[in-house]
Amino acid sequence: MNNKIIIAVDAMGGENSPQKIVDGIELSLKDSNENFFKLYGNKDKLNVLISKKPKINKYCEIIHCDHYIEDEESPLSAAKKSESTSMWQSIASQINGKSQITLSAGNTGALLILSRLILSMIKGVEKPALAGLWPNKIGMNVVLDLGANIECNDKNLIDFSYMGAALYKALYPETDPIIALLNVGLEEIKGHEEIKKAYQHLKQSNNKNFNFHGYIEGNHIMDGNVNVIVTDGFSGNIALKTAEGTANFITKNLRENLNKGLLNKISLLFSYNALKRFKNQLDPRKYNGAIFLGLSGPVVKSHGSTDARGLSYSIKMCNKIVKGNLIEKIKKNLIK
Amino acid sequence: MNNKIIIAVDAMGGENSPQKIVDGIELSLKDSNENFFKLYGNKDKLNVLISKKPKINKYCEIIHCDHYIEDEESPLSAAKKSESTSMWQSIASQINGKSQITLSAGNTGALLILSRLILSMIKGVEKPALAGLWPNKIGMNVVLDLGANIECNDKNLIDFSYMGAALYKALYPETDPIIALLNVGLEEIKGHEEIKKAYQHLKQSNNKNFNFHGYIEGNHIMDGNVNVIVTDGFSGNIALKTAEGTANFITKNLRENLNKGLLNKISLLFSYNALKRFKNQLDPRKYNGAIFLGLSGPVVKSHGSTDARGLSYSIKMCNKIVKGNLIEKIKKNLIK
Repeated sequence: MNNKIIIAVDAMGGENSPQKIVDGIELSLKDSNENFFKLYGNKDKLNVLISKKPKINKYCEIIHCDHYIEDEESPLSAAKKSESTSMWQSIASQINGKSQITLSAGNTGALLILSRLILSMIKGVEKPALAGLWPNKIGMNVVLDLGANIECNDKNLIDFSYMGAALYKALYPETDPIIALLNVGLEEIKGHEEIKKAYQHLKQSNNKNFNFHGYIEGNHIMDGNVNVIVTDGFSGNIALKTAEGTANFITKNLRENLNKGLLNKISLLFSYNALKRFKNQLDPRKYNGAIFLGLSGPVVKSHGSTDARGLSYSIKMCNKIVKGNLIEKIKKNLIK
Repeated sequence: MNNKIIIAVDAMGGENSPQKIVDGIELSLKDSNENFFKLYGNKDKLNVLISKKPKINKYCEIIHCDHYIEDEESPLSAAKKSESTSMWQSIASQINGKSQITLSAGNTGALLILSRLILSMIKGVEKPALAGLWPNKIGMNVVLDLGANIECNDKNLIDFSYMGAALYKALYPETDPIIALLNVGLEEIKGHEEIKKAYQHLKQSNNKNFNFHGYIEGNHIMDGNVNVIVTDGFSGNIALKTAEGTANFITKNLRENLNKGLLNKISLLFSYNALKRFKNQLDPRKYNGAIFLGLSGPVVKSHGSTDARGLSYSIKMCNKIVKGNLIEKIKKNLIK
């Protein structure tokens, strides 16, 4: 366990957990053995799963929790539940240094509220944000806020910019972050007062840790000219889900058309590799994992419905976040 | 000209105008000869174009205007320009009954401002909205506001719902509109105060002209379970452009993959018809045309960069709007 990155995992949240969690850890070990996993959840269930996989045994420790938070439970009910839930324990483990980061595939609202209750805020940040990865032509964007804050003022948008830039640099140390604010036009006069004030602040900022691009419109999110895109949680959530719905609509439509008739079926034989590459490039499991930013410890939320492969990508993200010193980078960016 | 629907066309706005305008009219006449076109613009240029197309001559009247509004001009500068611009004249023609609807492929901001200056608001509506068509699995949604109003209160969202339902019914008389509010979750407690108030109002409404579905999230816009989707202009503009960017990203990615290597090129021969059908189904020209709602006369904005085919779809939309008595339907929906 020496020199390993210690990831606290809420092993009970999300579809097919804890099976998916254990399978995801197994997959991740094929890539890297830099991580050690503290699994919070039902000891009996976890023991059965891990005993079948001796290879991963030495990379895991099970910490029994009597309860867990249901995926459909309200955040309020989750907050009222005893401290013996796997989600609570996996977050609290960061406080006394038992872990360096928390990963859960469980209830997003509950994870947000419990994280805020247990972990303190980084000094100077008013609201934590939910950041995610979003593919573009040449790599990945960091986009935030994806839904933690329905209403944001200019200070929040500025904080999100600093935090998003720190996250990008932690994940992709070789590239300097370029920040843009998501807006309905490119001119300085466009948008509401909050975004205009944030624009002026970022334009005049002398912060050496990122570059400010200005505004960006929704149709250019995937162009790859910027890599940190900042918006309020209402628009960010709508943009993310609309992109997801559009991608599903188009790929389903394509599949249906290509499955009609003999000629098309023959064509599928020839284009098998191309279509596989196409599917692989757009595989949402590759950017599975949203990050809560603004808290004194890092918390990663895996998609509840992802599979073991998706979870293994979240583990990779956790590893990079700890190695990239995310929290220190955020604090550094906040010193204007 | 008797019994024809009279469309006032700003013939000078948008890329390749007035050539595109005349070509679009010619295309539309292959489908229907129910329309008569009043073309506002440079008489010399228009005469040259129309004299080459004797078939469309009897469906058009040219009204000379000395000036026109540039596509890149600021709305303020457009508003200051003399009343002799083709955009101004094409809108003003509705006041004295010289036309029933206005169509322009020009500057959106200028068209919005001039429309508001020239046409009065429908009594009871506080803000006009920009509505557009958005494809779903089984047909089309009406989505509004797409960017006319950056900030909206509950009254605005309710007005948009009534106006959107009226537009849907005018365009698709055979289907009863089902309205949903675009939000970040489905539960009643989700979202900001304005949307929650609008939700409660619409839920309790006894209006017989539409059904209220509740909230919808971005990933379900294209499912086809609702057909009128209401949001503020900030989120609506971001959602629309994000969907556009996502669609472009995916189709470009697919094209690149299918063009790599000999096997894929062979497959393209077999799947030619399927890919053509796929492209055709998603052709944005088919839903070209945004509608300004809330004014005492209907104004349709064609995409500036569309071609003659796209413009012919806007003409079809104008025809349906007039035949569907849009303005009367809006007034009827507003009587709660």
